[in-house]
Amino acid sequence: MKFILLFAMLATFPAAVVGQSAAPSLAEKLGYSRDAKLLIVHADDLGMTHAVNAASIKGLESGLVSSASMMVPCPWFPEIADYAKAHPNADLGLHLTVTSERVYLRWGPVASKEKVPSLLDAAGYFFHDWTAETHINPREAELEIRAQIERAHAMGVHPTHLDSHQYRLFASGKELFEVVLHVAHDYHLPVFVTRDWFVEHPYLESSLSRNDIVVDHTVTIEPSVPANKWAEFYTNAIRSLRPGVTEFVIHLAYDDEEMGAATRERDTWGAAWRQRDFDFFTGAEFRNLLQQENIKLITWRELARAAKQE
Amino acid sequence: MKFILLFAMLATFPAAVVGQSAAPSLAEKLGYSRDAKLLIVHADDLGMTHAVNAASIKGLESGLVSSASMMVPCPWFPEIADYAKAHPNADLGLHLTVTSERVYLRWGPVASKEKVPSLLDAAGYFFHDWTAETHINPREAELEIRAQIERAHAMGVHPTHLDSHQYRLFASGKELFEVVLHVAHDYHLPVFVTRDWFVEHPYLESSLSRNDIVVDHTVTIEPSVPANKWAEFYTNAIRSLRPGVTEFVIHLAYDDEEMGAATRERDTWGAAWRQRDFDFFTGAEFRNLLQQENIKLITWRELARAAKQE
Repeated sequence: MKFILLFAMLATFPAAVVGQSAAPSLAEKLGYSRDAKLLIVHADDLGMTHAVNAASIKGLESGLVSSASMMVPCPWFPEIADYAKAHPNADLGLHLTVTSERVYLRWGPVASKEKVPSLLDAAGYFFHDWTAETHINPREAELEIRAQIERAHAMGVHPTHLDSHQYRLFASGKELFEVVLHVAHDYHLPVFVTRDWFVEHPYLESSLSRNDIVVDHTVTIEPSVPANKWAEFYTNAIRSLRPGVTEFVIHLAYDDEEMGAATRERDTWGAAWRQRDFDFFTGAEFRNLLQQENIKLITWRELARAAKQE
Repeated sequence: MKFILLFAMLATFPAAVVGQSAAPSLAEKLGYSRDAKLLIVHADDLGMTHAVNAASIKGLESGLVSSASMMVPCPWFPEIADYAKAHPNADLGLHLTVTSERVYLRWGPVASKEKVPSLLDAAGYFFHDWTAETHINPREAELEIRAQIERAHAMGVHPTHLDSHQYRLFASGKELFEVVLHVAHDYHLPVFVTRDWFVEHPYLESSLSRNDIVVDHTVTIEPSVPANKWAEFYTNAIRSLRPGVTEFVIHLAYDDEEMGAATRERDTWGAAWRQRDFDFFTGAEFRNLLQQENIKLITWRELARAAKQE
């Protein structure tokens, strides 16, 4: 009985919503129909290691990964910056980074250390974790993310969008999110925010201005998925993709010596995890699914252009 | 005629020198005879990549590499710092670093950027090169090398000695060398200086105090040696080793994906170069040569202890 009622609501509700809001959907702004299924396949963490860069470049060049973002404070940023300069059409944003969550490979601020002490541990790296005792000064976070954008510019890189490593700057309160938004507006860069987060973090919605882009949905695999269910998880997510714009947040790398060493303290987002993501998202199965489900891959550059046309 | 005269001088000179200076040689201070052949086999650049760390640790644990030094500003310093803490008897110094000579993998200062602007390029990394137009402020160099030592301490690492990446701080004039010496004295750490450099850089000799250690000789392979002559070069160097203390400065790494990518812009000190060093210095041929030539491997910890006993 409940099921039938729910079904009836689903069948009637959308029409009512459409009736209320005449504003074009993000899909429509992009020139697609309201019910088109549009997907950004987005690789995170470029610059962290060579293995991440090499696998992510391979993913981008396969045509099956449509976008990615780069960590400016990381040691291999110069390698991916060089790629970005040589491939100006590649859809590469900045993965704003204020944590250094690994144990054997670490990084610190781009800004002058003395100006961002609240972000740093005793050795001068970004904190491994943020806890209840960590008091991040939003002004220092702003200085640091501006320094990351400025270093990218100094190296000839012009990012297409901004997002946040480990979602730290989005999930840690209104003040930090507004810092990112303020900086993003200054640089005329879109920020990856999705409607899926609004229930848990209402300030994300209330802080946005009407010109900010809001991605309809996001999908990312979680540690609860066992390794042998990887393809099944993604296949289900693709088969049940909803109309509108969805971003798949994925993490590509090769499971080699470097990546294994860099992530050896835990399996989550480790070398084997990233190799599984690489294998699925550069494979024939994924390519066939996109075709079967009539899913179009899009980029952040397209989203930004659509938002500007408004 | 000239040859005979030279030979006569060589035959008579040493006795005269010995007669003049009754001071014990470095070998004698270490408890060996004046004609003992003592060798430090020293691996440079630890911390630069995982491949350097892994190969250097293997070298140290083979017993055939007796000492090494670590680059604090580099991304993989935390990995080698962790090893140093877990292996307090390993002979690990700091390879003071003020340049970032690679293209795709780069690093910057440990000190606050604003305090060391003369060391940095426009993107905030250490300079790739020092040219005639580079004006390094010695006070800033001092701040930076103190910051490197302090970060090591903050991470629980207590280095056995100091040396200089690319010899920059030793070969770039009296002022910078005296900065290193001053800091080394403050921390009671020996500095790698060899008599072999005194002709080209007389300030090295004149700046030293009588308690500073001076290694008698150093050997390092140069780009002029072709790859297939690697073992021959080292074999000759070992067979012609002179009495006293010699340091072989070597560079170990595995020739893998990471190291190949990190050094791909040139072959010198590249991945294959470092693999050749690894192969020679962990091989049976080197072990046999040490035995045949009655060469004793020593460490910087022993040198420091001998100097303090004086």
